Amino acid sequence: MVDLIIIGGGPAGLSASIYALRAKKSVLLIERMGLGGQVAMTTSIENYPGFELISGVELAEKMFSQAEKLGLKTVFTDVLEYDITGEIKRVKTHDGVFESKAILLCLGATARQLDVKNEKKFAGRGISYCATCDGNFYKGKTVAVVGGGDCSIDETLYLSNIVDKIYLIHRGNKFKNEDVDFQEIVNMSKKENPKVEILTNTIIQEIKGENKVEGIIVKNLLDKTEREINLNGIFVAVGRKPDTSLLNEVVDLDENGYILTDENMKTNIAGVYAAGDVRKKLLKQIVTACADGAIAVASMIPYLNSKK
Amino acid sequence: MVDLIIIGGGPAGLSASIYALRAKKSVLLIERMGLGGQVAMTTSIENYPGFELISGVELAEKMFSQAEKLGLKTVFTDVLEYDITGEIKRVKTHDGVFESKAILLCLGATARQLDVKNEKKFAGRGISYCATCDGNFYKGKTVAVVGGGDCSIDETLYLSNIVDKIYLIHRGNKFKNEDVDFQEIVNMSKKENPKVEILTNTIIQEIKGENKVEGIIVKNLLDKTEREINLNGIFVAVGRKPDTSLLNEVVDLDENGYILTDENMKTNIAGVYAAGDVRKKLLKQIVTACADGAIAVASMIPYLNSKK
Repeated sequence: MVDLIIIGGGPAGLSASIYALRAKKSVLLIERMGLGGQVAMTTSIENYPGFELISGVELAEKMFSQAEKLGLKTVFTDVLEYDITGEIKRVKTHDGVFESKAILLCLGATARQLDVKNEKKFAGRGISYCATCDGNFYKGKTVAVVGGGDCSIDETLYLSNIVDKIYLIHRGNKFKNEDVDFQEIVNMSKKENPKVEILTNTIIQEIKGENKVEGIIVKNLLDKTEREINLNGIFVAVGRKPDTSLLNEVVDLDENGYILTDENMKTNIAGVYAAGDVRKKLLKQIVTACADGAIAVASMIPYLNSKK
Repeated sequence: MVDLIIIGGGPAGLSASIYALRAKKSVLLIERMGLGGQVAMTTSIENYPGFELISGVELAEKMFSQAEKLGLKTVFTDVLEYDITGEIKRVKTHDGVFESKAILLCLGATARQLDVKNEKKFAGRGISYCATCDGNFYKGKTVAVVGGGDCSIDETLYLSNIVDKIYLIHRGNKFKNEDVDFQEIVNMSKKENPKVEILTNTIIQEIKGENKVEGIIVKNLLDKTEREINLNGIFVAVGRKPDTSLLNEVVDLDENGYILTDENMKTNIAGVYAAGDVRKKLLKQIVTACADGAIAVASMIPYLNSKK
């Protein structure tokens, strides 16, 4: 029995670990895959205050080491079931049941699919949801990045250092943030023999190939024209969704599955808190995830003290 | 005329600068004294995720340089008057009037006084509100730190590397956070000839001295006994208050003068936002100030776009 179980080792969970351990609370962090969450899949971070430029992996490692030196205990396993409505919170995993007085859900959000025919068939054989993970396999090749959000910009910039040619495909005509990173891509697209070609108002109609991706047919939504592009990879960056299906009938969620909390990270259940991208909120950034984690701990300390 | 004027160059203002400049908004930062705000007065920061240990000055410099490389313009001056209820926000300063479409108030909070007789008389002559600023003047001497919050713990730890002896004086019997830092002080107090002596349920009754602080008379609130202590300095660490007097009848404040905002940093006035310690909120930390700044920008971008 620990004071606090944290589910998810991204910035929210690691920041919460630091704050809880410094407050002398016992903490168990349960993480499904690797530490850092989405951050570990981000190439270069330039907007986390204090670091002009840092890779996601490096930042995640720094936060983890900071928490570990304070005594963080981590279990890498999958959560199978939550029993968290009572006084004692129970988390059933592949590695047994863990118990705590409070629980903090830092589940993040995972990649949305494109929903084009053959997408599943070619997953891992030309279709990827993470440029940092798979980009290296496409050295000197031609790829598409699909999406119009921050993630598609990040993925395009990352891949521009590796591949020969990128088609940035967006069904809309305006990108979510036409900021400095986006301008960099626009500049690339304006050069002769540009490394990046931006196709707006465009969707992928069909994925071609026998055993792996060999090309796509794209359709312009304005003039209805189609065009075949030969390429080797498709990086899908059309957003994320929270992985809250196990919490469905227990914790209050919004229509997209994001956890509803108050501004101090409290959910509808006593002793259950949420922080980071899994939470319904305006701005999903590393620094806001970290702040969420810190606030959740400040918010739960009186609760934990009352359960002594 | 710029898009955004930010008042205050602490973590909230610097983080907001980074986010606003990356979103291609023009920003003017107005700072009264030096960059970093309270942070610059903090010796060692161990709970900002990503840095295991960093000085406040160093962290503030990193954040400022990050914003400056994105094109931040800064004016060091005092604000005399705000005219911010209209469409165009005007800030009157010693260096002229500056205009913007939106304004972000990151005013922080300044030190509270002890309110003991002779406190003002001896200010700068034995009474200090900032160990980082003045600690070095007390090398090898005896001092008191007064307070029971995080700040009193920080000041005590900082001074323990400089002075010979510290009396940590707290009118209550429990410190706000009895965390790792506090434990370190407790450990110090348990040694033979301890560097730190913790006096709980105790107040300073009188400050003694002719031209400078030479001693104090403390009173135990439980047994009413008094005791005279010879010392050279008193570090007052009894909390802070926000400096919002100029906004008094314009922006909604709470009973302590903190600015009331919604969770997206909006005040009661269109185009006026607040972030960081000046805002009424649960947890006042560097990481939460930074998150506030980022959220304020995300929150104001639709407003700014509508004013084009």
